[in-house]
Amino acid sequence: MQAHTVFIVSGPAGVGKSTTSKQLAKKLPFSAFISGDLVSHMHIGGRQKPWKSQEETSLIWENILSLTRNFLKYGNDVVIDYVTFPGEARWLHEKLLDVESEVHVKYVVLWTDKDTLVKRDSMRKEEYRMGDRCLILVDEFHHSGLDKRHILDTSEKSVRELNEILAEIIDNERFTIRE
Amino acid sequence: MQAHTVFIVSGPAGVGKSTTSKQLAKKLPFSAFISGDLVSHMHIGGRQKPWKSQEETSLIWENILSLTRNFLKYGNDVVIDYVTFPGEARWLHEKLLDVESEVHVKYVVLWTDKDTLVKRDSMRKEEYRMGDRCLILVDEFHHSGLDKRHILDTSEKSVRELNEILAEIIDNERFTIRE
Repeated sequence: MQAHTVFIVSGPAGVGKSTTSKQLAKKLPFSAFISGDLVSHMHIGGRQKPWKSQEETSLIWENILSLTRNFLKYGNDVVIDYVTFPGEARWLHEKLLDVESEVHVKYVVLWTDKDTLVKRDSMRKEEYRMGDRCLILVDEFHHSGLDKRHILDTSEKSVRELNEILAEIIDNERFTIRE
Repeated sequence: MQAHTVFIVSGPAGVGKSTTSKQLAKKLPFSAFISGDLVSHMHIGGRQKPWKSQEETSLIWENILSLTRNFLKYGNDVVIDYVTFPGEARWLHEKLLDVESEVHVKYVVLWTDKDTLVKRDSMRKEEYRMGDRCLILVDEFHHSGLDKRHILDTSEKSVRELNEILAEIIDNERFTIRE
């Protein structure tokens, strides 16, 4: 059986998760793109804000896990685009070991300076703007026990090509979660 | 344990599946809305057109099934918005019986005249237009062995309120799939 890779593309809001992870999925010959926000908003009646409800967060991650398992079973790599903390990435990794021994999980936390995050947030449509939560998320990552090797700094993104970033995510083994 | 309901809202393209099923999910106090098209488009690299590939269709339905199971486990009713043939509805029903005895599956095929379908299709943005597939789907439903009791005709929709249609879907037991 061929080994497949699950890429978790994380980071605070405004860091470029969606753009990067969509292009990553397009670059892979057999792939799925799972947007955590989209999965989260499938819940309509009785939905809580995930950052205020552990139950809501659990439901979202169970849904992401189920979709990931199915896509792997059908021979795809999987790209997950979601604000993911280290504990959640480890949980997903452990759950995937249960059923699928030949899977690598790469956990990438995109990072940039606070000014860029605030600027990008202000450029979004009003209904998508995160406001204060933008910088709260940065602090949450700082206190999450995140290992530096998972961080990919894109501060000089204007000069660095997106393709260079994608190549680093695909080729660099430092992002891989180990047992 | 409380019984929950899975509503499969089907029918040819242009019949009003999305509008009806989104409003249905909003009406239910604890609910999820699963768009089959959205689930289908999570597959990026190597995706086949589902109406040309049995494997692609199987992957989509396994994903819909997994999401449905998770949402039921967390106490939600589930609304599925997808072109669903009788065999697929029965498959989902059987799979849900395996794990969850207290679940009702209601299979509703929205229906209207061909002129209305073609007219609505022409009003979509170009990239969403179905063209010929619109009427091909009507024929596929005609040859699918569909039991009439699952059909909900919305031809006089301009005079019938959407709320009336939603109430019929929720209250009328004729849509329920039986063993």
